[in-house]
Amino acid sequence: MIVKIAPRGSMVQLSQLEVDRLKQSSKSEIFQLYRNCSLAVLASGLHSDDSKALFEQFSNFNIRILQRERGVKIELQNPPEKAFVDGEIIAGIQEHLFAVLRDIIYVSDKYESIKHINLTNSNHITNVVFDILRNAQALPLLDPNIVVCWGGHSINAIEYQYTKDVGYQLGLRNLDICTGCGPGAMAGPMKGATIGHAKQRISNARYIGLTEPSIIAAEPPNQIVNELVIMPDIEKRLEAFVRMGHGIVIFPGGAGTAEELLFILGILLHEKNKNIPFPLILTGPKESADYFYKIDEFIAATLGEEAQGKYQIIINDPEQVARTMRHGITEVKTYRRKTGDAYQYQWQLKIEPEFQLPFDPSHEMMSQLDLRFQNNKALLAANLRRAFSGIVAGNVKAETIKLIENKGPFELTGDPKLMQMMDTLLDAFVKQQRMKLPGSAYVPCYRIK
Amino acid sequence: MIVKIAPRGSMVQLSQLEVDRLKQSSKSEIFQLYRNCSLAVLASGLHSDDSKALFEQFSNFNIRILQRERGVKIELQNPPEKAFVDGEIIAGIQEHLFAVLRDIIYVSDKYESIKHINLTNSNHITNVVFDILRNAQALPLLDPNIVVCWGGHSINAIEYQYTKDVGYQLGLRNLDICTGCGPGAMAGPMKGATIGHAKQRISNARYIGLTEPSIIAAEPPNQIVNELVIMPDIEKRLEAFVRMGHGIVIFPGGAGTAEELLFILGILLHEKNKNIPFPLILTGPKESADYFYKIDEFIAATLGEEAQGKYQIIINDPEQVARTMRHGITEVKTYRRKTGDAYQYQWQLKIEPEFQLPFDPSHEMMSQLDLRFQNNKALLAANLRRAFSGIVAGNVKAETIKLIENKGPFELTGDPKLMQMMDTLLDAFVKQQRMKLPGSAYVPCYRIK
Amino acid sequence: MIVKIAPRGSMVQLSQLEVDRLKQSSKSEIFQLYRNCSLAVLASGLHSDDSKALFEQFSNFNIRILQRERGVKIELQNPPEKAFVDGEIIAGIQEHLFAVLRDIIYVSDKYESIKHINLTNSNHITNVVFDILRNAQALPLLDPNIVVCWGGHSINAIEYQYTKDVGYQLGLRNLDICTGCGPGAMAGPMKGATIGHAKQRISNARYIGLTEPSIIAAEPPNQIVNELVIMPDIEKRLEAFVRMGHGIVIFPGGAGTAEELLFILGILLHEKNKNIPFPLILTGPKESADYFYKIDEFIAATLGEEAQGKYQIIINDPEQVARTMRHGITEVKTYRRKTGDAYQYQWQLKIEPEFQLPFDPSHEMMSQLDLRFQNNKALLAANLRRAFSGIVAGNVKAETIKLIENKGPFELTGDPKLMQMMDTLLDAFVKQQRMKLPGSAYVPCYRIK
Amino acid sequence: MIVKIAPRGSMVQLSQLEVDRLKQSSKSEIFQLYRNCSLAVLASGLHSDDSKALFEQFSNFNIRILQRERGVKIELQNPPEKAFVDGEIIAGIQEHLFAVLRDIIYVSDKYESIKHINLTNSNHITNVVFDILRNAQALPLLDPNIVVCWGGHSINAIEYQYTKDVGYQLGLRNLDICTGCGPGAMAGPMKGATIGHAKQRISNARYIGLTEPSIIAAEPPNQIVNELVIMPDIEKRLEAFVRMGHGIVIFPGGAGTAEELLFILGILLHEKNKNIPFPLILTGPKESADYFYKIDEFIAATLGEEAQGKYQIIINDPEQVARTMRHGITEVKTYRRKTGDAYQYQWQLKIEPEFQLPFDPSHEMMSQLDLRFQNNKALLAANLRRAFSGIVAGNVKAETIKLIENKGPFELTGDPKLMQMMDTLLDAFVKQQRMKLPGSAYVPCYRIK
Repeated sequence: MIVKIAPRGSMVQLSQLEVDRLKQSSKSEIFQLYRNCSLAVLASGLHSDDSKALFEQFSNFNIRILQRERGVKIELQNPPEKAFVDGEIIAGIQEHLFAVLRDIIYVSDKYESIKHINLTNSNHITNVVFDILRNAQALPLLDPNIVVCWGGHSINAIEYQYTKDVGYQLGLRNLDICTGCGPGAMAGPMKGATIGHAKQRISNARYIGLTEPSIIAAEPPNQIVNELVIMPDIEKRLEAFVRMGHGIVIFPGGAGTAEELLFILGILLHEKNKNIPFPLILTGPKESADYFYKIDEFIAATLGEEAQGKYQIIINDPEQVARTMRHGITEVKTYRRKTGDAYQYQWQLKIEPEFQLPFDPSHEMMSQLDLRFQNNKALLAANLRRAFSGIVAGNVKAETIKLIENKGPFELTGDPKLMQMMDTLLDAFVKQQRMKLPGSAYVPCYRIK
Repeated sequence: MIVKIAPRGSMVQLSQLEVDRLKQSSKSEIFQLYRNCSLAVLASGLHSDDSKALFEQFSNFNIRILQRERGVKIELQNPPEKAFVDGEIIAGIQEHLFAVLRDIIYVSDKYESIKHINLTNSNHITNVVFDILRNAQALPLLDPNIVVCWGGHSINAIEYQYTKDVGYQLGLRNLDICTGCGPGAMAGPMKGATIGHAKQRISNARYIGLTEPSIIAAEPPNQIVNELVIMPDIEKRLEAFVRMGHGIVIFPGGAGTAEELLFILGILLHEKNKNIPFPLILTGPKESADYFYKIDEFIAATLGEEAQGKYQIIINDPEQVARTMRHGITEVKTYRRKTGDAYQYQWQLKIEPEFQLPFDPSHEMMSQLDLRFQNNKALLAANLRRAFSGIVAGNVKAETIKLIENKGPFELTGDPKLMQMMDTLLDAFVKQQRMKLPGSAYVPCYRIK
Repeated sequence: MIVKIAPRGSMVQLSQLEVDRLKQSSKSEIFQLYRNCSLAVLASGLHSDDSKALFEQFSNFNIRILQRERGVKIELQNPPEKAFVDGEIIAGIQEHLFAVLRDIIYVSDKYESIKHINLTNSNHITNVVFDILRNAQALPLLDPNIVVCWGGHSINAIEYQYTKDVGYQLGLRNLDICTGCGPGAMAGPMKGATIGHAKQRISNARYIGLTEPSIIAAEPPNQIVNELVIMPDIEKRLEAFVRMGHGIVIFPGGAGTAEELLFILGILLHEKNKNIPFPLILTGPKESADYFYKIDEFIAATLGEEAQGKYQIIINDPEQVARTMRHGITEVKTYRRKTGDAYQYQWQLKIEPEFQLPFDPSHEMMSQLDLRFQNNKALLAANLRRAFSGIVAGNVKAETIKLIENKGPFELTGDPKLMQMMDTLLDAFVKQQRMKLPGSAYVPCYRIK
Repeated sequence: MIVKIAPRGSMVQLSQLEVDRLKQSSKSEIFQLYRNCSLAVLASGLHSDDSKALFEQFSNFNIRILQRERGVKIELQNPPEKAFVDGEIIAGIQEHLFAVLRDIIYVSDKYESIKHINLTNSNHITNVVFDILRNAQALPLLDPNIVVCWGGHSINAIEYQYTKDVGYQLGLRNLDICTGCGPGAMAGPMKGATIGHAKQRISNARYIGLTEPSIIAAEPPNQIVNELVIMPDIEKRLEAFVRMGHGIVIFPGGAGTAEELLFILGILLHEKNKNIPFPLILTGPKESADYFYKIDEFIAATLGEEAQGKYQIIINDPEQVARTMRHGITEVKTYRRKTGDAYQYQWQLKIEPEFQLPFDPSHEMMSQLDLRFQNNKALLAANLRRAFSGIVAGNVKAETIKLIENKGPFELTGDPKLMQMMDTLLDAFVKQQRMKLPGSAYVPCYRIK
């Protein structure tokens, strides 16, 4: 089966040099990246978080760029059928395909060929994140209204309905949604907001999905996402969330959600960010109250009271979540206007390199993480963040899974009490089926010593 | 509590004569009509089908039109709080308020003051229906794609989810939804379609709600409806459905749904309409299959095989429903183009006066209905339609309820076998809680002799 | 030659009753009106002010309305070729054709069939004018910015360039233009404003043309007009100008321009209008200065100093004209907001019936006009207005020209001094070729005794 | 006088690195370039082609970029007053200011910092031209309809009116205009097309101006230009014209126009371009017929009959010009579709490096030009193009003028007969005041030996 897809949404005119760069070739790393991200996007309708299985199932999938009189077309060979309705590609997926093309081209350009960019320089990293978002036209001149929603891709039915309810209330208040763009807590708020926006006749609502190549296949973008951006790695994706977003809601989730919470707390704890308003709400249905109390305890024990002061926990009250967020964002706006910082991109938020430099989890890196209680809470947050990040990778990223298959689980060591707390938390995630979609027994990719 | 509502959506400039006509006055019939329809629209968030209770609960509600430099404003006194989010009126309700104003003004003009309109002339009635829809800008020059969804306001959770699933599949196929605009089967398809449209990036989808003054308070418009039209009476509303719509889906429902099915079948059985393609699908989840088999039996016994040939029953297959509808509408388009009939308004459909002239159910009218088997199936359909229409009125219309309270239930007489079949059908509706929203015991407003 | 024109711009769906009303018939008055107005619109490219000649030249022109699946089409037989570019109708003319259809249908409805309208009641007339404009969607909710430009259809090249320069400056200041929509001073300001608007990137500028059936053929709408409205008669057209417009610029012109000036002055002199701000500027190039001094003298002698105080004369300074107008309209806006009067339609302006009731110039009516100096300046203005109106009709309206051919020129009598002043003024108009387009000797249609 | 200008039209969000790069500094070359281009854009209302005078007159002009919560603002110190209407900047100029910012930032990025671009490689040059146009969003996916209009900035009133008439006819046929964006033949067609587009209700017409830093001050963009792009040098600007444009009209002009004609002829004569359709029309009013006959003779004598076959001369017939162009562009469209070449950018047109590599006219370079008759007509065209290019620079570019002031006129040598023909042609340009705007005696910047 071969279909040709006309452009929709994004950059549809390529130069000959750009097309050449993406010429189909099994050896070209960038082409493989492009092919895999495209496949992930096409797999959006499938219910799976197993990227390896996906790639195997569609091993005869291929993609090719054609230049035509009306711009570029994309030729697909043997794409997943779920991406089509009565033989026509779903418009949302069509847009996503061209977003992938746009970002892969742009990022490869920025990374490979620009002399004046130094990717170990914190300032330059921040500029690259900005550049990629701007190129994706994800920074329109609007008033602050982006609510980042974090939470697990694998949540239960009650939690899923709750994320929809919160999304609905956010939508009624004209707030846009930004998530990691996969299923579960990344899809629910968008679905709910769609209904809220419809009732408020908001036809230009934004459903922003930020993903990255190594996770996209495990968390295929849901099709409501109408602005998909593929960041080069998890750290730039997280930086994009906190510089673009005007507030964050955290729903129940697993290791990835813990990583995200530690990331934002680590940053907010920085001396220079002390006075910056940033609404951060942890919320879930009453059935999930316990989940948050456990998290809260963990934060109290590791990062302390100051960190606890950075968030609110609201149980079982979608309206209250939305009202609090709306109010908090008003303060964000006032502060930005007062300080002259851009509404679209929070330049002034100080992020230290330990939160920016890519952490590539290997057995060695993981075992060497410094996991001890200490006074520098931001540093502890950074290291804990890396530990959870490695676990996420071991759960869902194809490459890391292979690593684990070869060498056995990661080993994490550190202060015994801390280790025990992590173990308890992770155990709970496993029992609540937050690590992977239900259907298979979860085999931990880590061992806590 | 007094709030002033700025215009949104519809006719917002009134002449001084028009404003005078709607001057608040407890004696003016048109002002009362206007006030009550506005209250119904504002009650959209409330879960009730009891108009009497609504009017009693908000007896201190009032409304006033103000002329301002930027057109008209509406002043509300003591409106239902559910119409507001954090003190701001929901945009959908705001639009509905101005739709009410637009239609009341226009219809009163057409009815009371136009010499050349004769409302007993079939042709003139059809023109008035057209006029009202055109004035509401409900006849844009688009390709045929309106699916009318009929079904009960009181359906169970499985059925409700099913109506959403069908709406989703219709939305994925770029079909617009038109319903009676209340809750239940009138809201579900719109909600589902909203998600389908979002995935297909259709931002100008139409969610058309057709209502009428005597029913609007019992079935407050859901807020997804983005084109609300208030037709003068049930017959013109039904005519609007079949002339505007390009296909009809019927979900489970009660007496109202039976009325609607009999209306369309009676028309399609007309000799002159024989060759007109008109997709008509009866559908529900597998749990409701029996419902449709009963209906089908009833139709077979009363209107015969020809009538049965006018519809398809599809059980538990939303995709198949949508595909069949999409295909059927393509045929409608071809036929209209061939015959030169307007895509927006099916002039050529022949409707006899017995389906057009308002039936005002009184005890006398009801008892005199000619309910016997006969060869003229269209006539039998017309009479059965009236019988069910009277029962709907007795269930939900304030005036008719009062009548029943005074004089006891309507009495229906006719051919014993037919009477028994009706009784069985109605009994099933009652048992399945399709007559009224659950919560109170249903007391039948009719007696079958 | 037969062409079919698809709808553009205005009401494109007609009911069957409406189509029937416009069935081609040489006896139907309304069909003849419709045919002639359509022909006038199609003649827009021709340079002529002789309606009789036009009708004779295109005596084999015909028009027919067809109902099609996508609404109405207009079939033209033997239309003027100038209306087409390479065989395609010019979009502006296409819009105008459908504006004619819209207004003829609507007005015939309002006039012939509405019971509650009394066209000798001042209030009702004002409501009908509003109704027609609203139906033409000519009353959008915008800030005040409509500058009415009055002046002759036959002006010299320097004056024409000057009207363009003024239009340019108005356009640069985001002001919209409304004129009688013919050539000369009715076209120049629109052309100039088009360039000014382009430089200011105003893409939704309005170029409103108000005309009426008896004048449209002599002054075919220029194609820049993007909102054409056909008012039923000259008096309603004048009322539309002063209720819609937020300020008036008067360029040099002939009898028609004098009529217009007298109309607005007569109204502004009304006691009740005393405090209403209404910018009124008489302007022309320095070569035309004398023209305005003569007019000013005439006003001084007839309506007195108070009337003179209602306008400013600005010679040879387009920027100053535009600045003054912009400033004046700001005052209009403030006043309307303060008094709650609509921005789109000046309800509060008091207009007496003598300025509203149609004046149909016959020899008898003209000879009986009371043209004497008197204290009631408004009344004198009304009568002078009628005198000039009759002369315009005698110059360009087909029917009145026939009358003059049969019975000789109109005779005007009155106070000798006043008569002499009128004579001088009219003589100057004739010598300056303001009465008719150059090319033929002008034979006066009046005699002053 | 200090004013702050909010963004309009183009890239309005800058990264901190980008803002840093444009920090005001008298030493920074890029800042000076930015300041001067901005000043040129602001001088649009002034009537001058003397960039030196402009820079001297506004020596106290300065510019600064400010980062604000709603993106970037531009602060102007002592800008030309003509850029403002009643204290508000004209929207067209506002857009142009941000277009300058966009292009300067982008080009400096591409030029200075991208490793993989080799600016002596023909293919890479073509890609850079594409890149710059795409970044300026000047390559939307539309059908071919861009008519490039070339001709002098200094033309007489009859010729100017003629360029407007041609523009009007092009506009009536829905063709967009692209010029060098200065006054004269670069403004007239746009003005005319504005009226044509208005009559055809085309509200998204494109008026594209392509300029370059060294010429922009001598030919300030006219404000109708709604897409301004600043190409890095004259050769890339010329390449942009011929790859973006779908046809070319050449009006009378001076040395610059001759340069342009030689450029396109040299390219079209290339063996590989032989079959590519490219409508090329030389046209003027009948008074300018002689001008074109002289040019035609010159081409005949130098480039021969084949070159003559590449263009048509149409005298005094704007309609015919527009019809021919419309027809020719239809052929272009067919050819592109057949060959799969992009509608927006003619990749397949072969351009040799001698037409691409920047020619920087010095006394040495000019004296060494190989100006002899020869069989390689394309090469002769390239050299003649350079000769005229040098003369344009000597006439209007500030730097070259200084060079001439110091070292005397350029000396051109070559085949005597050819030299004499050039002399005659240039003499005619001088006499017809085509070299510079009238007002000063023209002192030739060249000497033909």
